[in-house]
Amino acid sequence: MIARYFTDLTGQSGVALGIGDDAALLNVRPGQQLAMASDSLVSGVHFPETATPRQIASRALCVNLSDMAAMGAEPRWFTLALTLPRDKANSEWLTEFSAGLGFIADQYNLALVGGDTTSGPLTVTLTLVGEVAAGAALTRAGASPGDSVFVTGTLGDGAAALEFVSNINNTPDNSDRLLHRFYSPQPQIQAGLKLRSIASACIDISDGLLADLGHICKASGVAAVVQAEQLPIAEDVQQLSPLDALEWALCGGDDYQLCFTVAADQLPMVEGLIERGELHASRIGTIEVSAGSGNLVSVIDKNNNLLTIENPGYNHFGH
Amino acid sequence: MIARYFTDLTGQSGVALGIGDDAALLNVRPGQQLAMASDSLVSGVHFPETATPRQIASRALCVNLSDMAAMGAEPRWFTLALTLPRDKANSEWLTEFSAGLGFIADQYNLALVGGDTTSGPLTVTLTLVGEVAAGAALTRAGASPGDSVFVTGTLGDGAAALEFVSNINNTPDNSDRLLHRFYSPQPQIQAGLKLRSIASACIDISDGLLADLGHICKASGVAAVVQAEQLPIAEDVQQLSPLDALEWALCGGDDYQLCFTVAADQLPMVEGLIERGELHASRIGTIEVSAGSGNLVSVIDKNNNLLTIENPGYNHFGH
Repeated sequence: MIARYFTDLTGQSGVALGIGDDAALLNVRPGQQLAMASDSLVSGVHFPETATPRQIASRALCVNLSDMAAMGAEPRWFTLALTLPRDKANSEWLTEFSAGLGFIADQYNLALVGGDTTSGPLTVTLTLVGEVAAGAALTRAGASPGDSVFVTGTLGDGAAALEFVSNINNTPDNSDRLLHRFYSPQPQIQAGLKLRSIASACIDISDGLLADLGHICKASGVAAVVQAEQLPIAEDVQQLSPLDALEWALCGGDDYQLCFTVAADQLPMVEGLIERGELHASRIGTIEVSAGSGNLVSVIDKNNNLLTIENPGYNHFGH
Repeated sequence: MIARYFTDLTGQSGVALGIGDDAALLNVRPGQQLAMASDSLVSGVHFPETATPRQIASRALCVNLSDMAAMGAEPRWFTLALTLPRDKANSEWLTEFSAGLGFIADQYNLALVGGDTTSGPLTVTLTLVGEVAAGAALTRAGASPGDSVFVTGTLGDGAAALEFVSNINNTPDNSDRLLHRFYSPQPQIQAGLKLRSIASACIDISDGLLADLGHICKASGVAAVVQAEQLPIAEDVQQLSPLDALEWALCGGDDYQLCFTVAADQLPMVEGLIERGELHASRIGTIEVSAGSGNLVSVIDKNNNLLTIENPGYNHFGH
């Protein structure tokens, strides 16, 4: 089935032998390390059961690409493990799914090189392999006290989209942007590539800013302070629910933006990229010395008062 | 969950950064191509629902390793996507599964570098990445008329084991060997490595000799003739059912032996390896010019009479 619906679906850059043998053969460029990650998306958990095959394919690939972006890696190849219920194991569904996969893969020069299909509840597992110059990858460890904290794009879009996708009555005027953000969250591949040798630490925001910045702090042995009024929140998200917008930006998942830290000596580089429009990012806080206990990430208002955030923890769709 | 039960489960050869960041970072050796393959195993389809977590882990990894063997690749790294029903998502099950995975992975110097767990019917998807010197990989294409056809080990063990696993009343005396063959089919990694630059084509036997040798023929544009009396069949398999043994050897799946072809000028190399006990393999037939129609693989008896094999197609467990 993989061979029938997915062969030659995508560009085949660096592929010496593609789908159809016992394994694909891939040409790694000299001096490159591999970045490798797997993610599974389950119907009713990571996307609603009403999602179209194109939307499911697009979301699965974008979410997985975001992990490559977070490492500063260039995505190269992927395999697909598709579990399909019998009512979807038909040519129409597979053709649409395949088209959705190809549409995103081609944008990122990513080649599908293998996979497997099985019967069962709809689950999409992708394994991506990317390349990054040896030693240049961005990781969660490396943030130091005094570093600035940045995020790309806007925050809270994912949670607002979830609100919109979950509640059909709650229709914002410009819902198309949010729907698009849900099914095709734009992986920050270019930002990740530019931040290599500039950022001291990086993560993609899949579980919410507080949780993911917390991962950077834990891996780096530091703490962070976030200034609430500096958080980039899109106007439509603010309008959708002014009361919820801040919580969405801090705790909402599925934004798939990058959160990264920058040491003082690299700050002019980042500011230059932002000023020239080569990087869409906002400074939102500072890395501090860890107190060794309590929250690793604090949020303050413009008067430097500590905000108490009741982090409900991120709920994926349907949970 | 991956981090909790699976970190440091395995040796971490070539791993610059393992489980715990957005992606693993892997060091590819200079001059190597990658071999990459994914396979999913579903409970009740690829293993019985009574299988223990250790048996499931072992079988999943062995089956996937067999794809690396077929390419002549050295297995290096893998990710795990584990879908678990709620009644198995407990410490006991995961600890046993993890131990089974580690037991096999360590034998092959294979590092677990990432993955994901989701909730649902028990499914194990592994993605393996191996290394093979650039241009040296074994593929299905490359067999030429006049080449000899070989298989490693013995044939029909997989089907006999399936018979045994499926029917508790049908207990052969030495069932332990067959049970072991079912849950830990030994991937022919060393054989694959030795056959690089010797074999003209290679495949692992997962769907049965006739089907898989047929894949070689199709990819190479040739036909094959197999001599029934040359098929290596283990004594216990012969005893289990003398009537079925030949069909098991020809059509049974899950043997995970290698089927490979050898040109005349490389024949002495292979015979030398076999004589010195460095390769356990048997010559079972010849590659011929394809007639362009009909069966690609014929089977003859010792009087050169064509046998009519009713290939039922390989049925996985429970189908």
